[in-house]
Amino acid sequence: MTVIPVIKKLITEALLEDLGQGDVTTDNLAVLNTPENQSTGSLSVREACVISGLDIACQVFWAVDPALKLDLSVSDGDSLQAGDKVLTVQGQTASLLKAERVALNFLQHLSGIATETRRYADAIAGTSAKVTDTRKTTPGLRFLEKQAVLHGGGSPHRFNLGSSAMLKDNHIKAVGSIKKAVDELRQHLSHTATIEVEVDTLEQVKEAVESGADIILLDNMDPATLCQAVATINGKAIAEASGGITLSQIRAIAETGVSFISTSKITLGAPMIDIGLDFS
Amino acid sequence: MTVIPVIKKLITEALLEDLGQGDVTTDNLAVLNTPENQSTGSLSVREACVISGLDIACQVFWAVDPALKLDLSVSDGDSLQAGDKVLTVQGQTASLLKAERVALNFLQHLSGIATETRRYADAIAGTSAKVTDTRKTTPGLRFLEKQAVLHGGGSPHRFNLGSSAMLKDNHIKAVGSIKKAVDELRQHLSHTATIEVEVDTLEQVKEAVESGADIILLDNMDPATLCQAVATINGKAIAEASGGITLSQIRAIAETGVSFISTSKITLGAPMIDIGLDFS
Amino acid sequence: MTVIPVIKKLITEALLEDLGQGDVTTDNLAVLNTPENQSTGSLSVREACVISGLDIACQVFWAVDPALKLDLSVSDGDSLQAGDKVLTVQGQTASLLKAERVALNFLQHLSGIATETRRYADAIAGTSAKVTDTRKTTPGLRFLEKQAVLHGGGSPHRFNLGSSAMLKDNHIKAVGSIKKAVDELRQHLSHTATIEVEVDTLEQVKEAVESGADIILLDNMDPATLCQAVATINGKAIAEASGGITLSQIRAIAETGVSFISTSKITLGAPMIDIGLDFS
Amino acid sequence: MTVIPVIKKLITEALLEDLGQGDVTTDNLAVLNTPENQSTGSLSVREACVISGLDIACQVFWAVDPALKLDLSVSDGDSLQAGDKVLTVQGQTASLLKAERVALNFLQHLSGIATETRRYADAIAGTSAKVTDTRKTTPGLRFLEKQAVLHGGGSPHRFNLGSSAMLKDNHIKAVGSIKKAVDELRQHLSHTATIEVEVDTLEQVKEAVESGADIILLDNMDPATLCQAVATINGKAIAEASGGITLSQIRAIAETGVSFISTSKITLGAPMIDIGLDFS
Amino acid sequence: MTVIPVIKKLITEALLEDLGQGDVTTDNLAVLNTPENQSTGSLSVREACVISGLDIACQVFWAVDPALKLDLSVSDGDSLQAGDKVLTVQGQTASLLKAERVALNFLQHLSGIATETRRYADAIAGTSAKVTDTRKTTPGLRFLEKQAVLHGGGSPHRFNLGSSAMLKDNHIKAVGSIKKAVDELRQHLSHTATIEVEVDTLEQVKEAVESGADIILLDNMDPATLCQAVATINGKAIAEASGGITLSQIRAIAETGVSFISTSKITLGAPMIDIGLDFS
Amino acid sequence: MTVIPVIKKLITEALLEDLGQGDVTTDNLAVLNTPENQSTGSLSVREACVISGLDIACQVFWAVDPALKLDLSVSDGDSLQAGDKVLTVQGQTASLLKAERVALNFLQHLSGIATETRRYADAIAGTSAKVTDTRKTTPGLRFLEKQAVLHGGGSPHRFNLGSSAMLKDNHIKAVGSIKKAVDELRQHLSHTATIEVEVDTLEQVKEAVESGADIILLDNMDPATLCQAVATINGKAIAEASGGITLSQIRAIAETGVSFISTSKITLGAPMIDIGLDFS
Repeated sequence: MTVIPVIKKLITEALLEDLGQGDVTTDNLAVLNTPENQSTGSLSVREACVISGLDIACQVFWAVDPALKLDLSVSDGDSLQAGDKVLTVQGQTASLLKAERVALNFLQHLSGIATETRRYADAIAGTSAKVTDTRKTTPGLRFLEKQAVLHGGGSPHRFNLGSSAMLKDNHIKAVGSIKKAVDELRQHLSHTATIEVEVDTLEQVKEAVESGADIILLDNMDPATLCQAVATINGKAIAEASGGITLSQIRAIAETGVSFISTSKITLGAPMIDIGLDFS
Repeated sequence: MTVIPVIKKLITEALLEDLGQGDVTTDNLAVLNTPENQSTGSLSVREACVISGLDIACQVFWAVDPALKLDLSVSDGDSLQAGDKVLTVQGQTASLLKAERVALNFLQHLSGIATETRRYADAIAGTSAKVTDTRKTTPGLRFLEKQAVLHGGGSPHRFNLGSSAMLKDNHIKAVGSIKKAVDELRQHLSHTATIEVEVDTLEQVKEAVESGADIILLDNMDPATLCQAVATINGKAIAEASGGITLSQIRAIAETGVSFISTSKITLGAPMIDIGLDFS
Repeated sequence: MTVIPVIKKLITEALLEDLGQGDVTTDNLAVLNTPENQSTGSLSVREACVISGLDIACQVFWAVDPALKLDLSVSDGDSLQAGDKVLTVQGQTASLLKAERVALNFLQHLSGIATETRRYADAIAGTSAKVTDTRKTTPGLRFLEKQAVLHGGGSPHRFNLGSSAMLKDNHIKAVGSIKKAVDELRQHLSHTATIEVEVDTLEQVKEAVESGADIILLDNMDPATLCQAVATINGKAIAEASGGITLSQIRAIAETGVSFISTSKITLGAPMIDIGLDFS
Repeated sequence: MTVIPVIKKLITEALLEDLGQGDVTTDNLAVLNTPENQSTGSLSVREACVISGLDIACQVFWAVDPALKLDLSVSDGDSLQAGDKVLTVQGQTASLLKAERVALNFLQHLSGIATETRRYADAIAGTSAKVTDTRKTTPGLRFLEKQAVLHGGGSPHRFNLGSSAMLKDNHIKAVGSIKKAVDELRQHLSHTATIEVEVDTLEQVKEAVESGADIILLDNMDPATLCQAVATINGKAIAEASGGITLSQIRAIAETGVSFISTSKITLGAPMIDIGLDFS
Repeated sequence: MTVIPVIKKLITEALLEDLGQGDVTTDNLAVLNTPENQSTGSLSVREACVISGLDIACQVFWAVDPALKLDLSVSDGDSLQAGDKVLTVQGQTASLLKAERVALNFLQHLSGIATETRRYADAIAGTSAKVTDTRKTTPGLRFLEKQAVLHGGGSPHRFNLGSSAMLKDNHIKAVGSIKKAVDELRQHLSHTATIEVEVDTLEQVKEAVESGADIILLDNMDPATLCQAVATINGKAIAEASGGITLSQIRAIAETGVSFISTSKITLGAPMIDIGLDFS
Repeated sequence: MTVIPVIKKLITEALLEDLGQGDVTTDNLAVLNTPENQSTGSLSVREACVISGLDIACQVFWAVDPALKLDLSVSDGDSLQAGDKVLTVQGQTASLLKAERVALNFLQHLSGIATETRRYADAIAGTSAKVTDTRKTTPGLRFLEKQAVLHGGGSPHRFNLGSSAMLKDNHIKAVGSIKKAVDELRQHLSHTATIEVEVDTLEQVKEAVESGADIILLDNMDPATLCQAVATINGKAIAEASGGITLSQIRAIAETGVSFISTSKITLGAPMIDIGLDFS
């Protein structure tokens, strides 16, 4: 298995946070610290969900105790039913007790994102649109949260401010026009980077198309306006809709012909999934 | 203002995550990088909420540009209405554009927790019970999330595995009895630490009281059983209820006479609050 | 063996400090860097002591060379005589030479603390009092030093400023009275946290008892006053004595009936133990 | 003032250790957190000592609150009497309460080392010998501890394994002879580095001189043997004595004519100095 | 000025490397450590170059001593002649002496890259091609090196493995065909990301065009073949040439009509620029 | 194999830099992520060189995937011909693709330094002089670059500002004379440290010799003057030449009788070596 350096760092910090002054309960009960005191734990979901975070959960267990034996029953992105087993972990009881909470916190949080993403993805199934995320993510966890979006069937948006360009109204106002801003960016940007322009009106859509933008972000438009915008774009750029997207409206938006619908609802504040570890 | 070392570390990581390869949009538009290009941004909430995270939000802005001027309109823990202004930030436009998202991500996430906590706290107003959190928090953000619980009117539970002892069924089974486990812990624990025992049955409540536990965690009991448990405890320990607590049931539980009701709902997966920055 | 994240960090820093620019002696003698150049080292104490730090010493050796084989002869907290063997380490000579000093520095420092603690603990054996530490510890090493106190037969005090509350005269003066300060803390503190109040006079002892403090720190009182204080407290709080405790006076203090006697002498400035590594 | 990067790192870790979960006492007393609640603290020594660590103590206060005003009364290396004032710190009471312990722990530990060093230095005053330290230092604090040795009137030995070469018996045995080992090192070492050879017998002293070693470490020799060793060396190398040096024997050793006497007693396990902060 | 988190980290590490055990020369000469000992240093280039790294050089000086006064005479990207002044730094002599080398090392290294890039950029001036970099950069310094490429008149390629996709022969062989690989990537990649395909033959160029690749990397083709490749691509993708590009051949390659020419010569191993600090 | 803590840190940062947001190409091609997709890569040099960096290259591969099997064909310092194989790496294809660039960047950079050093060393073969490096190294990579100098047949100069003393004109001017500066340093410096004095004139050479300096740095002198300087020094100190040394002049300088010739040309800006990984 390939080791991801960002994940290593997160695990170190998470374990320092929870175990930084030891585990005063487990550490002070002698019987739990004998090598013979072994247990088997079965990690299972308490509600239907899309699972995400298996890799980091396993690495949390191994970071606490490299001798723990893990046996995975499912893969990231799988749809599970309440009661489905996720993995079995076997080893010294003390190690299981110490790693349990941190491993679960990652899994519950990330599976929450994958599950919420799946709900939005399912709502627009059959259309040509895909749900995509935003930079509204929990500080420090973006890499994992964007993986969870992929596991849920969404498509990741740009990773950060350095990945690709996004011209918002403040940029455009400062430079003078969409055309001028796109031109200036093209001169300095990597040829591997794309330029997205956020627009509010159909007039701006036209300007953005003429500027040669790669992606046009249609912000806060109703379905009728979106249809016109898509017609104006006419395949010359990727059409993306955003702005207060809810689960009930998303299908109507998808049916306007946009290719991507971005929403922060699938990341920041997505409800977590109830997952537990039972000792047998 | 006192500087909290944990917060400094979080801000560094969050800025590395979003700005680690620069801001290819803002960095490549020359006009935004002139000292004259100044802006004033007004940060306000888009929905009613309890605000939390003002301190870290300010420090994010200053970490990006120490010359930014910040003017706070509210304090952590304040109840705000949709549209209420949170703060004004004034300085170089480029700095505002680069710091905005990270500052908002912290604020939206933490205000979500404070707001959800307030909902639970309000639901049991007038009873002698308080809502308290758990160790089910976002990895790396526990310090801030527990502050948000305080801002929302909740009471924080133990910080981590090293703060105080919590005997769960696995500990008790391994040692043999609640009494034995409490006795062994008392011998090794700091006299500043308390011991909490998790119990499922009224019989165990009795055992826990007799063991001299400081806090008894009444897990997954219905209100009627809780009443009996409280009567059994009779002030000899702090009574805490937990297990699948929902907003609709919490008042019935509070009215059983327990002192604390712990729930993960106010932290992991609490809905975020919509907050935005408007340039004037 | 469970891995403690704090310990990992300390080892990294300690090895960077001593080995950060390599070992110019060992690295530049070719014969020492051949795989065949193996040695066995026997680590033993040069004076009677209570040993502490075996876990971190082993991890230092493994951090330098994961192939080293270690065989422990004793356990943390054991009382050893001059000459007693602590452990045997076998592997590449170069690795032994590079790890030796850092491993010994930890062991000598921590065994010094355990041994000094044992001296104080022995001096009050048979009384109901226990010796406990303070926050006067070597910056960065508190976790290990508090474990050494446990190994020496002492009882650890609160870990840090976040673990439990301690009202000192400055806090009390600012708020107005012990009662007011305790009341305000109770409203905001976790129910798992205890409140300790530092007092100088018998009048304050009374106030502290009435305030409902969990622990009362009787500062700089002579044995006669301590007896009165214990009588006043009368089991309603834990009585702790502190202030310029010396080995010769501690028994008289313990016999006053206090439960804990805190002293910085067992940590900061405790004499180190002479421990060495002999190659066979 | 020049900023030392090692010191910055140590302060961050020390504050994370003590303040990582906040200060539950001070943070929860509202009156202490108002800007008007200002205090002046006077830091003074409770016993005669040589002071060391003023720089890091000041930086600890500023790391907690950059607005604190500090006024130093003494300089590192000064000999102080019990009661002498070290510095005055003025600012928000909460900041003083939070920074106090960490600042004092550094000062007490380092002044302990400076004071112990001064005792050894004074004992050999008038001879041509100087007391020097070893690599037996507290893991992570070596830079500060070696500064304290300088403040106490000692001379620092090599910083770490990379600073200069030290041939011990294991190195010599492996290579075959002192001469061979010195020759091999000279070929690879920087011309700015010196080579020290540890010897036990007069025969080895001769060999070491002939090998061209820069420094010869005369280990565990009695004064008579040391005199002969110094005569044999005859200025062709620096003569350094070591091994179980005590304060009562050191003058006799210094009078043998050695230039340096190294001892771990002045660092690891040096008694700390009692220093306190009084609020006025 | 906006603070870049990556740069802060680099400066900390660079100063730890050079100043981690202090500056034994400057620290031990008392006169240099008096506040009155002030100096003015003039940093100037010893040879014609394109300057890059001013921002980090200034921050190095301030990290060593926040009181240093800096006055910049030029901007990153400026073409300088031998003897041209870059900046003036004024303040305590000791601080200048300690910061000088690290500041210069950054400037000399980065100006070397900017200057080499300018040479390549000038060689193809007037053509429609731009010189671009690769991932062959000094480990840890990529962000700064890519800025230096921009300062030299080059265009940055993708930042890292996560920024955009690049299909090389091993990827294509594993998946089966260019078309299949591009299709699979499109399904999972962000819509803000582009796909580049590396090809060796004209047949592969055709396949790559048909696959819908955004950029086609024409590897190791002679000018004649490149002309044909450009004709085949015919504007349907961006044409990039690479492979053993030298300064003497680059114009011939640029004249084939490719849009980008990538070369590692402008980063890894670019000759450094001689820059010095003179005290007045 | 002994683990060097500095190297571990560098690898973590280098992998975060390149793999911090994953590898969007390799991660998104399913077939590459199956355990069966194994490859063997052969790393070989594309031009004649002295190889350096094998240790860190191997550790990069293992940091990405501990299951990779590595087989080294050469040792650091070996002279290789174009086409010579360096090592074979076998394991999961995805891991090879992810680690390849970072491993090569280290190897190409360090082998460039070793090779350039060898060129200078060969140019003065047969003389009594050795080529040595300076503190002009790439920030963060000094440890590795100095090892590369050793591999190339050079001799390392002092590691950093803390390793040994170097009096430059600014130091001397401030103190008043070479003699005074050397005397003051001797009082505070470790007896394991040496003092080097930089001089420009023959008069200063004399002063430096009389001051008892260990090493005299003869800066920017022509061969005739160097001969006189060496005669003046007459073995009472080590003679080192520096200042604008080029490959064509170095032999003339070496023949003046100096023992060391220091040059920044062998580190900062040394041309890199072309090394590649071929999949079989």
